[in-house]
Amino acid sequence: MSELKILKLNEIKKRINLNKVISDQEEGFIAFSKGNAIIPPVGYLHFVKPPGDCHIKYGAIKGDDIFVIKVASGFYDNPKLGIPSSSGVMIALSAKTGEVKALLQDEGHLTDIRTAVAGLIVAKNLAPKRVKAIGIIGSGIQARLQLELLKHFTDCKDVHVWGLHIDEAEVYKKEMEFKEYNVTVAQSVKEVCDNCNLIVTTTPARKFLVNADWIQPGTHITAVGADAEGKQEIDPLVFKKADIRVVDSREQCVDHGETCHAIRKGLVQESDLVELGQIIADASLGRKDDQQITIADLTGVAVQDIQIVKSVLT
Amino acid sequence: MSELKILKLNEIKKRINLNKVISDQEEGFIAFSKGNAIIPPVGYLHFVKPPGDCHIKYGAIKGDDIFVIKVASGFYDNPKLGIPSSSGVMIALSAKTGEVKALLQDEGHLTDIRTAVAGLIVAKNLAPKRVKAIGIIGSGIQARLQLELLKHFTDCKDVHVWGLHIDEAEVYKKEMEFKEYNVTVAQSVKEVCDNCNLIVTTTPARKFLVNADWIQPGTHITAVGADAEGKQEIDPLVFKKADIRVVDSREQCVDHGETCHAIRKGLVQESDLVELGQIIADASLGRKDDQQITIADLTGVAVQDIQIVKSVLT
Repeated sequence: MSELKILKLNEIKKRINLNKVISDQEEGFIAFSKGNAIIPPVGYLHFVKPPGDCHIKYGAIKGDDIFVIKVASGFYDNPKLGIPSSSGVMIALSAKTGEVKALLQDEGHLTDIRTAVAGLIVAKNLAPKRVKAIGIIGSGIQARLQLELLKHFTDCKDVHVWGLHIDEAEVYKKEMEFKEYNVTVAQSVKEVCDNCNLIVTTTPARKFLVNADWIQPGTHITAVGADAEGKQEIDPLVFKKADIRVVDSREQCVDHGETCHAIRKGLVQESDLVELGQIIADASLGRKDDQQITIADLTGVAVQDIQIVKSVLT
Repeated sequence: MSELKILKLNEIKKRINLNKVISDQEEGFIAFSKGNAIIPPVGYLHFVKPPGDCHIKYGAIKGDDIFVIKVASGFYDNPKLGIPSSSGVMIALSAKTGEVKALLQDEGHLTDIRTAVAGLIVAKNLAPKRVKAIGIIGSGIQARLQLELLKHFTDCKDVHVWGLHIDEAEVYKKEMEFKEYNVTVAQSVKEVCDNCNLIVTTTPARKFLVNADWIQPGTHITAVGADAEGKQEIDPLVFKKADIRVVDSREQCVDHGETCHAIRKGLVQESDLVELGQIIADASLGRKDDQQITIADLTGVAVQDIQIVKSVLT
């Protein structure tokens, strides 16, 4: 048995080169949309007492040297014990011999990064050229990372944030002002929509927060919160109103995420959707002018995990 | 993040107490058959060049402190490179917090052990009291381990072995004679059936080897080879001829393994099957006399992996 490489979080962070991560993620989305990835359905275990779940995301890109299995658990009472809700591990195996090559104890960091990088890639392809202000719905880890990565797309430093808890939004404002953003804590989601033409939603909401009537021409929305059945941040009518509806995975987004709600109501058809990988491969499928409304539904695909493990290991 | 315990094969071997493994496995089968285990469908990835596959078996027993994910890969060209076909890893996570607690680099050893222990448990419940001779079909790892574990059930040292390759059967004979068995290399599977009333089949055959006509009254057969779609060692008519048909998992065995062939041909009904866990819990469901013909179809269930990881860790 070949020696197993075990990487802890600090070592993983040292190995991250953002430019490489971005190009690897773009390649991954393209491979996925071209059908060059084998991504089986996500494995799932549910726990009642205490409440928790465990997801197993795994897959392989054809021709790759390695494939990846990601184990991610969330136990929602953990903070009462002083430990984070999320934990897990990524495993890299040789696609040539099946040997377990590496174990990445990333504590969820690689998932956070690949999710935020997907938001940046979406913005590069769909956000209007001139960003008036960036709107952030939510005030957690993705609310921070999505904003910070957007500096690789736009110089805009004006931010309107709305949080489910005003206290947390105020903390967010302080932190982000320290990083030289001008942050306004909005009193309502509508206020964010009134002021911003690039909006990222990052909450675990189960009823939509963003009303279609509030969305102005020229707006782009990236929705990253709804990663599982029952979650919803965006009024399904936004999909009807939008000129371009982007999904990370057509198969997954018609099953859960934001898009499924619009599909089930008959507001859009599956043929109205375009996958992110298709747009990255063919920019003509992206935004055409500064008046279009665009939306991207990111539910998270194992190909992102495969690619970020490759970014770390090679 | 709590410290991850990493156990290599030698450390794992040192921790194995066979009596504990046997009782833990029995408890596991009982919990499974009582519906106290959550065992989702096995995750699967297939590779073409080079040929290989990866199985992800996982699950939880209700109320347990840990749950287990087993990653097992098989790449059939590996021996050409001088490395074993099989590799993998077992992961234990806390069922209370979701934290990754331990990683067992068992190199497939724990799967070998739990599979052989299942054969022993079957024999204890189904084999005739007086074993004339033990028949072994196949000459690989399970052919060895199954025989060696049967000494915990019977004093019988007379063995008839038949192998797909006569050379390997001769090596098997030498090795087992060194361990004080009297081994005859059989010229045919029929010869094994003629001489033995406790038979274990351990081959990766894809067409059946054991003909129903050869099975005499009072014989028990344990079939462990057919662990995946397309594999078959036993004539489906044996199921019709048998008085007791035991499966490790009813759901799994009607899908693949030996039993499915008999079900599909209408030779037996699902209601004719009894799960191993039911028999362990209620011995009256097992063998009643020395004339009954009994068969057990073992396809491998994640509950066995959960239990052997618990045996090692606690």
